[in-house]
Amino acid sequence: MSAVLAGAERACQPAPLAVLCGAGAFPLEVSSKAAEAGRTPFLIGIVGTTDAAIEAYPHVWLRMGEVGKLFGALKEQSIREIVMVGAMTRPEFTDLRLDWGAVKRAADLARLFRKGDDGLLVGLAAIFEGEGVRVVGAHEVAPQLLAPMGPLVGRSPSADDEADIALAAELLAALSRFDMGQGAVVAAGRVLAVEAAEGTDAMLARIGEMRATGRLRLKGPAGVLIKAPKAGQDLRLDMPAIGPQTVAGAAKAQLRGIAVAAGRVLIAERARCARAADAAGLFLSGFEA
Amino acid sequence: MSAVLAGAERACQPAPLAVLCGAGAFPLEVSSKAAEAGRTPFLIGIVGTTDAAIEAYPHVWLRMGEVGKLFGALKEQSIREIVMVGAMTRPEFTDLRLDWGAVKRAADLARLFRKGDDGLLVGLAAIFEGEGVRVVGAHEVAPQLLAPMGPLVGRSPSADDEADIALAAELLAALSRFDMGQGAVVAAGRVLAVEAAEGTDAMLARIGEMRATGRLRLKGPAGVLIKAPKAGQDLRLDMPAIGPQTVAGAAKAQLRGIAVAAGRVLIAERARCARAADAAGLFLSGFEA
Repeated sequence: MSAVLAGAERACQPAPLAVLCGAGAFPLEVSSKAAEAGRTPFLIGIVGTTDAAIEAYPHVWLRMGEVGKLFGALKEQSIREIVMVGAMTRPEFTDLRLDWGAVKRAADLARLFRKGDDGLLVGLAAIFEGEGVRVVGAHEVAPQLLAPMGPLVGRSPSADDEADIALAAELLAALSRFDMGQGAVVAAGRVLAVEAAEGTDAMLARIGEMRATGRLRLKGPAGVLIKAPKAGQDLRLDMPAIGPQTVAGAAKAQLRGIAVAAGRVLIAERARCARAADAAGLFLSGFEA
Repeated sequence: MSAVLAGAERACQPAPLAVLCGAGAFPLEVSSKAAEAGRTPFLIGIVGTTDAAIEAYPHVWLRMGEVGKLFGALKEQSIREIVMVGAMTRPEFTDLRLDWGAVKRAADLARLFRKGDDGLLVGLAAIFEGEGVRVVGAHEVAPQLLAPMGPLVGRSPSADDEADIALAAELLAALSRFDMGQGAVVAAGRVLAVEAAEGTDAMLARIGEMRATGRLRLKGPAGVLIKAPKAGQDLRLDMPAIGPQTVAGAAKAQLRGIAVAAGRVLIAERARCARAADAAGLFLSGFEA
């Protein structure tokens, strides 16, 4: 009788939402927004990657490759939905600490590692879904994190900036089929940098270095950072994101501003981003993608 | 009478070939190959950029922007052909020390500086040609510098390397219309880096840094550097080139090898490149572009 009641109670309470947490504070922001929306987040930390602050929530720690332990925890918590958030260093297959649950799926996992980032994530999602766990996007559980259309701060892009944004958007679209290219820096019609495996922060640091060494001779603020998802990208899996670190990098690179695809890029800690952009004289704007 | 003889003598002797010398030893190698082919090189050095070794040849030193002095020297030497060789840092228009010859052409020059690298060079070539000086390619005066088809050293690309080379060639072709993209590094189907304003050496250094910090987790040699000209690029103006520094960079980044578009990329100091590639266990190969 009490078992039946407990079952009924459980049915009324929504099952927790698993949050697979990459590096940084963003997984915590997504978890907090999901909790505000009435979800119960259950956080999965990766040893050596995830911030210890996740321990404020119900959580489990895993090493990369402990797939059996991961699915055990999801089952124990009756979890049917997972969201993957935050930067994760792509491991080499041979670096993984495979447990028995991983060994059972080793052929699937090994196949993934021959692919680009997209292929890897799509394959991971398929493995989750094969276990009855639906992958949802951070924007589905916390839509308020999506970049809106138009300026987020006082400054707006100039007509020249708009031309650079349009050029960069075309460039990123052309790169889509190569499973890369979610960021670029363009200044006055010239492509200064394209993001590949190094990530946005390193690309911005490069602009600063080129200015410092005189390889780039630019006077005053110059260039726009553009972030947009790959065309046809499954936004549940790897939506581009910016945060205060991106704004700090753009300011240090002496850019004119940051433009993100409206509704298709996540902004972590939006208020902090806006304050930092304003303080640095940068525009921060969503463009129609 | 003697003036007539002198004129006749001058007609029999081909006019000197101007070599506008960027940084490094490559302008000297081109000059020496041109001299072997019976040409008389007249070297133009850019203060702060060009190696002082050009003084072994008849030469003139200029500051960037001394366009009047440049055309004066070309006229004095009866020069009708110029070749532009070696890396040059793109200056800001306002950094140029414009002389009177430049001021006369200031509108043309200023217009150039709003363009990408291609636009700049095409415009420069047009200015030369407007003065009756034909721009020729380094490969026209020294065809033996062009990368041949197939392997230049003992090692050859594997089937997997060939797949990476094909992918990178497609990528560079897609980037062509953005006036950039003469280099990329691809490993096992994944684009690790794309070259923009930073140049090949900095791109290779980035691969090494990503390996050192663990952002790229690769075991042993991995990845191929691919160099190819932009589709539709005027090869007289900005043909991609590799040299011993490129090979050293690829070795330090622990790549598997270097692939260049056969007949469309210049190789400086070929024997030294081949020895260094062999010593580092790299392949160095021309592919059908």
